Amino acid sequence: MSIVDQILAGDVRAAARLLRDIDDQLPSARTLLKDLYPHTGKAYIVGFTGSPGVGKSTLVDQLAMRYRKDDRTVGILAIDPTSPFTGGAILGDRIRMQRHFLDSGVFIRSLATRGHFGGLTKSTNDMITVLDAMGKDIILVETVGVGQDEVEIAQCAHTTVMVTVPGMGDEVQAIKAGIMEIGDIFVVNKADREGARKTIRELRNLIELGLRHRDEPGWEPPIIETEALKGRGIEELYQAIEQHRRFLETNDRGQWDAAVKKRARSQLVETLRDEAIKALLQRMADRGVSLDELVDQVADKKADPYTIVNDVLSRELR
Amino acid sequence: MSIVDQILAGDVRAAARLLRDIDDQLPSARTLLKDLYPHTGKAYIVGFTGSPGVGKSTLVDQLAMRYRKDDRTVGILAIDPTSPFTGGAILGDRIRMQRHFLDSGVFIRSLATRGHFGGLTKSTNDMITVLDAMGKDIILVETVGVGQDEVEIAQCAHTTVMVTVPGMGDEVQAIKAGIMEIGDIFVVNKADREGARKTIRELRNLIELGLRHRDEPGWEPPIIETEALKGRGIEELYQAIEQHRRFLETNDRGQWDAAVKKRARSQLVETLRDEAIKALLQRMADRGVSLDELVDQVADKKADPYTIVNDVLSRELR
Repeated sequence: MSIVDQILAGDVRAAARLLRDIDDQLPSARTLLKDLYPHTGKAYIVGFTGSPGVGKSTLVDQLAMRYRKDDRTVGILAIDPTSPFTGGAILGDRIRMQRHFLDSGVFIRSLATRGHFGGLTKSTNDMITVLDAMGKDIILVETVGVGQDEVEIAQCAHTTVMVTVPGMGDEVQAIKAGIMEIGDIFVVNKADREGARKTIRELRNLIELGLRHRDEPGWEPPIIETEALKGRGIEELYQAIEQHRRFLETNDRGQWDAAVKKRARSQLVETLRDEAIKALLQRMADRGVSLDELVDQVADKKADPYTIVNDVLSRELR
Repeated sequence: MSIVDQILAGDVRAAARLLRDIDDQLPSARTLLKDLYPHTGKAYIVGFTGSPGVGKSTLVDQLAMRYRKDDRTVGILAIDPTSPFTGGAILGDRIRMQRHFLDSGVFIRSLATRGHFGGLTKSTNDMITVLDAMGKDIILVETVGVGQDEVEIAQCAHTTVMVTVPGMGDEVQAIKAGIMEIGDIFVVNKADREGARKTIRELRNLIELGLRHRDEPGWEPPIIETEALKGRGIEELYQAIEQHRRFLETNDRGQWDAAVKKRARSQLVETLRDEAIKALLQRMADRGVSLDELVDQVADKKADPYTIVNDVLSRELR
């Protein structure tokens, strides 16, 4: 059986190996991805974002169990791009796997590292492709932090869930104002904590501010209170995600198509960006142009990066 | 007086206009940056990272005032890439400017948005170039969030300060483990809060773990306790930064050169990445290849992104 067929049959070891190759940016991964791609597009992708410590993993794990009750298969991608050097995610995988280890319907994989010349969105998209090709019905993607990663994850997901906790201070709320536009569902986890009412009130105001800028008019993001550790609010979150899915699917199909296109655009442009820089650096090396020497020239102010890049592009591009 | 000369003379309005043009990715900005570049390399760049709500802005503002006591000029770049749509940073700028408005030695600029085809590192590097060319002695760059942005900011800065607060839970500490390697100085802000001792102890352990992976052997990152709102610990932080600078400058010059090269490499590669994707998309448009049509093909699974990108690159690259 070919590797592609193994993955299409849901083989965990073959899939895990490909995910590792994607993470390591092996060229062989590209060929497999190419062959898997036509078999994708069936999974529903839910992205989870929020600051560290808000309890995303617990929430995602609980939700995975809820989907299993429907007999839907689940893939979990936990993306923690904070470690360029250490392999901290492996331990985390093992701990989390134990929770689901009797259940072959749940596949968990953490992406801890990524090469400096790779992009998070690119790797995430590729990994989603693998889980999708495996036949997972639901893919839950959790990402650490606010910022670029958060905005980018929204490009990969059908539904984006933003997770917060009470009492992180006004500054958090001010920062959150900017990302209101990309959240489809808001979760206030640890909702038993002091300040939950206030946080929900503030969120509500900010969502209303953000509504004006949303890509999808007609959807009003709900706020769900949860205590993930106790399983409280998981059913409500599950229902909210289902509701957003139905909204996307039934609303003239226009919203759904827009979400699919958003993902396709991100896949295409990020792949182009990634492959272009790799190909250019390779061509420079083939011509005997030393990147290190160019770096030295820039460092010594003998040349500026803008002129060098201009030269490289006019030489390498037709 | 040309725009370049105006900026070299420290003209705030000319600089602000160029920063806006960089943010908007106007091609004219590139020409100016090219002319400014030979005049840069004199500023000392300090990066500040940490989760939202830890008090980075207050810390940076206090530190700016400390540098002013030495009669050193300061540029502040506050990078908040969380808002792809709204211009929230402008209000923040105004509020912060009021604190320093009588002092022409402090220049503050927030970068809130960035085009989807631009990179944070690229824009940050370009903005640092402008502030450096203006003659700012010290450039303080603060960035929101953990993750990619944080790792990338370390590429731009001579000294990277990681800010945390007590009691964000064990999960935070676990996540932080991965980024220990890139922090030169650690700050526990709001150090009057419960749990400060525990946080410092945990940090100490994690720093020791991270030391093995550091690029700069010989530097042991200090942990500074601050209460930024009261000004407590600012002098210690200032001294720690000065100490790291001396470490970089005197340690056989090798460490300093390594830091300069790290910045130059990041500038060169990020500029190449950014200009390459722009040029490729432009060439596709010139040939009448519609990106939207390609996106449709990917969305409809009629083509896979890997094959399309292969085709584009073999057509456009020599």
